[in-house]
Amino acid sequence: MDFNIVLLQKVIKDSLNEDIGTGDLTTNSIVPANAISTGYIVAKEDGVLAGLPVAYEVFRCLDPIINWQPLSKEGGSVSKGKLLAEISGKTRAILTGERVALNFLQRMSGIATVTAKYVQFTGDSKTRIVDTRKTTPGMRMLEKYAVRVGGGYNHRFGLYDAVLIKDNHIKYAGSIKNAVAAARQIVSHPTKIEVEVENLDQLRQALAVQADIIMLDNMSVELMREAANLVNGRAMLEASGGITVDKIKAIAEIGIDVISIGSLTHSVKALDISLDLQETKTLLC
Amino acid sequence: MDFNIVLLQKVIKDSLNEDIGTGDLTTNSIVPANAISTGYIVAKEDGVLAGLPVAYEVFRCLDPIINWQPLSKEGGSVSKGKLLAEISGKTRAILTGERVALNFLQRMSGIATVTAKYVQFTGDSKTRIVDTRKTTPGMRMLEKYAVRVGGGYNHRFGLYDAVLIKDNHIKYAGSIKNAVAAARQIVSHPTKIEVEVENLDQLRQALAVQADIIMLDNMSVELMREAANLVNGRAMLEASGGITVDKIKAIAEIGIDVISIGSLTHSVKALDISLDLQETKTLLC
Amino acid sequence: MDFNIVLLQKVIKDSLNEDIGTGDLTTNSIVPANAISTGYIVAKEDGVLAGLPVAYEVFRCLDPIINWQPLSKEGGSVSKGKLLAEISGKTRAILTGERVALNFLQRMSGIATVTAKYVQFTGDSKTRIVDTRKTTPGMRMLEKYAVRVGGGYNHRFGLYDAVLIKDNHIKYAGSIKNAVAAARQIVSHPTKIEVEVENLDQLRQALAVQADIIMLDNMSVELMREAANLVNGRAMLEASGGITVDKIKAIAEIGIDVISIGSLTHSVKALDISLDLQETKTLLC
Amino acid sequence: MDFNIVLLQKVIKDSLNEDIGTGDLTTNSIVPANAISTGYIVAKEDGVLAGLPVAYEVFRCLDPIINWQPLSKEGGSVSKGKLLAEISGKTRAILTGERVALNFLQRMSGIATVTAKYVQFTGDSKTRIVDTRKTTPGMRMLEKYAVRVGGGYNHRFGLYDAVLIKDNHIKYAGSIKNAVAAARQIVSHPTKIEVEVENLDQLRQALAVQADIIMLDNMSVELMREAANLVNGRAMLEASGGITVDKIKAIAEIGIDVISIGSLTHSVKALDISLDLQETKTLLC
Amino acid sequence: MDFNIVLLQKVIKDSLNEDIGTGDLTTNSIVPANAISTGYIVAKEDGVLAGLPVAYEVFRCLDPIINWQPLSKEGGSVSKGKLLAEISGKTRAILTGERVALNFLQRMSGIATVTAKYVQFTGDSKTRIVDTRKTTPGMRMLEKYAVRVGGGYNHRFGLYDAVLIKDNHIKYAGSIKNAVAAARQIVSHPTKIEVEVENLDQLRQALAVQADIIMLDNMSVELMREAANLVNGRAMLEASGGITVDKIKAIAEIGIDVISIGSLTHSVKALDISLDLQETKTLLC
Amino acid sequence: MDFNIVLLQKVIKDSLNEDIGTGDLTTNSIVPANAISTGYIVAKEDGVLAGLPVAYEVFRCLDPIINWQPLSKEGGSVSKGKLLAEISGKTRAILTGERVALNFLQRMSGIATVTAKYVQFTGDSKTRIVDTRKTTPGMRMLEKYAVRVGGGYNHRFGLYDAVLIKDNHIKYAGSIKNAVAAARQIVSHPTKIEVEVENLDQLRQALAVQADIIMLDNMSVELMREAANLVNGRAMLEASGGITVDKIKAIAEIGIDVISIGSLTHSVKALDISLDLQETKTLLC
Repeated sequence: MDFNIVLLQKVIKDSLNEDIGTGDLTTNSIVPANAISTGYIVAKEDGVLAGLPVAYEVFRCLDPIINWQPLSKEGGSVSKGKLLAEISGKTRAILTGERVALNFLQRMSGIATVTAKYVQFTGDSKTRIVDTRKTTPGMRMLEKYAVRVGGGYNHRFGLYDAVLIKDNHIKYAGSIKNAVAAARQIVSHPTKIEVEVENLDQLRQALAVQADIIMLDNMSVELMREAANLVNGRAMLEASGGITVDKIKAIAEIGIDVISIGSLTHSVKALDISLDLQETKTLLC
Repeated sequence: MDFNIVLLQKVIKDSLNEDIGTGDLTTNSIVPANAISTGYIVAKEDGVLAGLPVAYEVFRCLDPIINWQPLSKEGGSVSKGKLLAEISGKTRAILTGERVALNFLQRMSGIATVTAKYVQFTGDSKTRIVDTRKTTPGMRMLEKYAVRVGGGYNHRFGLYDAVLIKDNHIKYAGSIKNAVAAARQIVSHPTKIEVEVENLDQLRQALAVQADIIMLDNMSVELMREAANLVNGRAMLEASGGITVDKIKAIAEIGIDVISIGSLTHSVKALDISLDLQETKTLLC
Repeated sequence: MDFNIVLLQKVIKDSLNEDIGTGDLTTNSIVPANAISTGYIVAKEDGVLAGLPVAYEVFRCLDPIINWQPLSKEGGSVSKGKLLAEISGKTRAILTGERVALNFLQRMSGIATVTAKYVQFTGDSKTRIVDTRKTTPGMRMLEKYAVRVGGGYNHRFGLYDAVLIKDNHIKYAGSIKNAVAAARQIVSHPTKIEVEVENLDQLRQALAVQADIIMLDNMSVELMREAANLVNGRAMLEASGGITVDKIKAIAEIGIDVISIGSLTHSVKALDISLDLQETKTLLC
Repeated sequence: MDFNIVLLQKVIKDSLNEDIGTGDLTTNSIVPANAISTGYIVAKEDGVLAGLPVAYEVFRCLDPIINWQPLSKEGGSVSKGKLLAEISGKTRAILTGERVALNFLQRMSGIATVTAKYVQFTGDSKTRIVDTRKTTPGMRMLEKYAVRVGGGYNHRFGLYDAVLIKDNHIKYAGSIKNAVAAARQIVSHPTKIEVEVENLDQLRQALAVQADIIMLDNMSVELMREAANLVNGRAMLEASGGITVDKIKAIAEIGIDVISIGSLTHSVKALDISLDLQETKTLLC
Repeated sequence: MDFNIVLLQKVIKDSLNEDIGTGDLTTNSIVPANAISTGYIVAKEDGVLAGLPVAYEVFRCLDPIINWQPLSKEGGSVSKGKLLAEISGKTRAILTGERVALNFLQRMSGIATVTAKYVQFTGDSKTRIVDTRKTTPGMRMLEKYAVRVGGGYNHRFGLYDAVLIKDNHIKYAGSIKNAVAAARQIVSHPTKIEVEVENLDQLRQALAVQADIIMLDNMSVELMREAANLVNGRAMLEASGGITVDKIKAIAEIGIDVISIGSLTHSVKALDISLDLQETKTLLC
Repeated sequence: MDFNIVLLQKVIKDSLNEDIGTGDLTTNSIVPANAISTGYIVAKEDGVLAGLPVAYEVFRCLDPIINWQPLSKEGGSVSKGKLLAEISGKTRAILTGERVALNFLQRMSGIATVTAKYVQFTGDSKTRIVDTRKTTPGMRMLEKYAVRVGGGYNHRFGLYDAVLIKDNHIKYAGSIKNAVAAARQIVSHPTKIEVEVENLDQLRQALAVQADIIMLDNMSVELMREAANLVNGRAMLEASGGITVDKIKAIAEIGIDVISIGSLTHSVKALDISLDLQETKTLLC
């Protein structure tokens, strides 16, 4: 499941304009317009690669006939020194697009890398690692794509594609029952209703009104086990809040359906990746 | 030094549209349009606060007459439990804007917090901690603002406001001399020329052509000391690459002018911040 | 459940620019900039009112302090001659905004009116009348809002918020089983999977792979009854294709969950509504 | 007379983003990125075809090298079952673009079809069927193009390209004379002045000030005949309001120059058109 | 006849972003956010004032509650030293908006000033001075408004609001007759057809096909007189090409209807205008 | 040093939409869609050519495979009658794009021409002719590029890429010393600080605080000589205000580093350039 290419092109143009502004002073003064070169995108540390098609679109936006050869697989594990892609075309396009392409690639690969690490701990269970709406403004489509590339799954994309009744909504509505009733009256038939609960009492209330999904907020592993027993398959269960690598295995064994982790996207450690220009150069006549 | 409010409003509108899409299913089904509430933005861990005016603009975009009372100081240290701001107005605006406001606030405060930590290690020296262009696409203005809020300084904002001759440019030009000559012939008089060097030989070349700033790329502290002695004030010096907290103090003591750290913005750990709605509510007649 | 006000403002600005272009030649030559007037929006035929808040935003965009008094209720039935709203403020804003405001209002009220007619035929059944993606490009948020105002419900908003496997997808996948398996492997946990079927054989296949929703495409009432018996509550059922007013009652009695009707939005008959300016006028000093 | 391709591309990108959002969940999970297919666009009822070049641009936006073969003529009559175009290229582009392409095509063909029906009734007369500004927000360029494709003509495109003095303007100005005088003083020399009149008295006033065009608002055929005799060629005449198919022939015989019909665009019945994917498929290596 | 305020706001935001970028380094470092000041906009040379409402909108965009007092009349003659407007509000908004506001004001006043000069030479004749499409990209609405403010009139606004058949079109069509016939068959009834002619032979052809307006391209005053006699009121006449101040009076006396002058907008001499900040300042508490 | 192609494409699309609007009435009615032609861009007066790549992009935007052959060199001197470029492709693209392409080309060549004239007077000196921020809103990138093409240099591009402390800032800060201190505390290390001074006293203050650049505002040649002697290389010097061709030589001899001239961009005289379509034409089958 990829993404919307039309939207991607808009995001890329905005990003290039943010970085290039009125022009790349350095490149344009040193490199003539008709120079062509070859460069390599190289991993500088181990991780999971995500964003290669995005990087290509960045360069293609600056030189529509640039030549791009992927040398590693999107979603694959790469180790330090691995060549990720070969690019040849206008030297100016390569050097001017370098930073924006790497900014996408490093961030997305960082997300895929940490997602893959969490996913590994779910073992053979059916438990999914999913993201949240705690994404960087403007980057949601790509950050959620990177989670998928890393082996994770997506939670809802925004306020528009699922109902998630959280503490503040319950406070306003007065009770879980009221809140779910209000939502049910209106939401469309392909949309599920999820309720966030903080204890078993709330859990019982959510069950009583037949919530499709129940989010167990900041519960201990023990409490989650009790919750899972209590629910016994009558609703999908989501663990959320304070998830650490150590807890994942235990949670997966309980049979929780999804574990949502905000830090997948809100606290990304970029994967180190660079672009090396080859020394040979040619001038188009 | 703040930022461009006109540009900020565009960034915020795009971010709200990204999250709200065709409408906030949950809030709009539970909360009537004429409900008003009060809420508090609260720190859930210790750190340096950045982004409060941005959060306000997010809510103001959804309810132009919303009431906003900052309860902590932008750039100040906040500890877990500290109230950061009080907000009262349309309940829908508060709940619908919550996630986007927090996404800005958490990320910006995360940047300010880590910047402040690095700055502390520069002690009484004149050495500045600065950012790089390794920012999240679309967020550069705000991420660089957060660095300033945390006590750091900004490097150039993009390819358009300074010349920075890096390894790939030097490769293309054949030598530092060629590259600087080409740049000098063209760049505007208020623009400085910076050259990235990897060893003392390159450093001497950069000095010979009177680079305004010389970036010492990935050098050991010892090599940087030698470099500083060699330069002896004839150019501004920037340390870059592989900077760790431990190294900062040593580098500052050598008298390096600026230390640039990509991870300030490319590997942000969000500061945990939440919004709590008060239970009381009122309906506008 | 209303909509996204930030997105609405963008849609309105684009629409005003489409109509006003470089300026309203007629109004600007006849009416001085400081003239103020009062006008009334009036129904010219019977129907269900939808779009009043949108009309207000149109005028507010041209005169931020314009005075607007709704005189009829959004979603209420109005009869010919009924005053819908009173507007006072800059005469130029009223006359220049008139056509765009009415174009929204007439179209949205037309949608609400026909939706209400269909809804009436579902009687006391739990059957919902829902829309489709056959909306006018650029108008989806508002057209789907108008369906809700008319008492209907929304199907998915786009390709992004639900899985709907149609004939062309099944053709490509080779079988319903393959298609559902592929979708299930990837879609997020709050997203339902719907399958379009053309006969009972396909229906059984969809049931076998536990589709959440099954769309009965272009089936006779008799066939739908058989289908409903066969499914017996194991999936949600949607009737689609060739729906006429006469059929609705019969379909509702079978216990089909939703009836989707493309013509609600693709073949709208605008409700006749006009704006009458009062003759008195005042000039601001 | 076609339209502005640059503007069209913007409209199409906005429409695709409206429908695709963050990505086509169904297609992307079922169809691999390198699959290619052939499909046919097919008329499901009789009518006049309009919008074929628009549909092509939709698909081209998703796959720039898609292959498109028109099989029917823009503006031609098509009957149920007729193949309108053949399309081959990336399967994902075909399936993801299908609905948006059809939404344009069905609406535009609906407009062309009803326009052609009205035009037929004008027989051999010089009377033109024209549209109004009662178009769907955002779709004016394309809806007015569809009217031309159906054999009709366009009235003004917006408030910016002609003066049309209506009842509300006359009310404000105090008299037709005042209003026309004000307009004449300012409008540019290539711009005509049109006045809306409701009776013969107003008609005489409009003639007295030499209006270029006089719109006979909601008059009976008899009154229009009187008006035409009275004017006797001294101004162009437009019939407007309450136009039915039956009246057209009678109005045309009187010698009225143009008949403007809002329902051509405000109350469109979409022409039924679908896209059928061929079963064979190929994977690009 | 003013302009479209919605479009103006977009133009202004784009212009402010062009100048401010990521932030006004100078002002933001020197002036605190809560400082308020008063400033005056002052004419530094004699001319005709145009653009005052535009300048106000620039500042209002940066400080919505800024106080603005016009001290001179839009379209009035101002002499060196004349105060044009008083502005009080946030000092930052005044200093950051200064250059953009003045860039609009100086350019627009320059256009109004030269237009007024040309208009003066038309004396009591009915001859109009009009502009062309030779405007600065992005500035057409405002440049054409400035022409009107200076006492001139507008020619068509773009390719979309009038037919103007020029030499290249005639070359393609083979003859004026062909070209006019093609245009007439399609253009809407409120749209006039203008033909550019280079000699009396072409003039006769244009008359024969009843062009509404005939543009006499680069003709001598003598030839224009012959043309006017020949036409004798059967078409509107436009003089174009090589118009100098000296020729205007002669052309006006012949009875030519409009004189179009490209240099009104393509070769503008900005009127010198500056902004002076008062020394007193206040800090908001 | 060229410019940002991504930004250029946005500027061009906006400009084409401004001129074409809903469609080119004249061309589209006379020229069939499949006609192809050849045309020549021709200088109608002597000057320096700038903007040829921009003109090409205009036509390419309307016909992506249009054929373009530059016949003169960007930045070269051209004389009346010189062919600048040959263009062949869709006749409609050539005729519809003509005016926008020429509007860019004429304005940019006008800027390059006058810049070259000023540059000539600097003789063998190292003095640079530079532009200012007095550019046409929306055109800054291209106007500043045209200055470079004419042999001049650029001053800062906006408020974001250099500090320039002007009279109003000094007034607010109370003294040059205060203002510079405030700026120095914040601006980034690659950014220079410039101070505008009106007399020698202020000059000494600016020197005392080690301003990087000092702008001598509206000084006589004699005073500038004194200033240069006083500064004696300790700061870069800029002459600004009331610069005339006669003064340039004298200023250059003093050794002033840069002379900034607002009229290069605020008072442009367009270079006369036209497009001639060849008479032969071909229809694509």
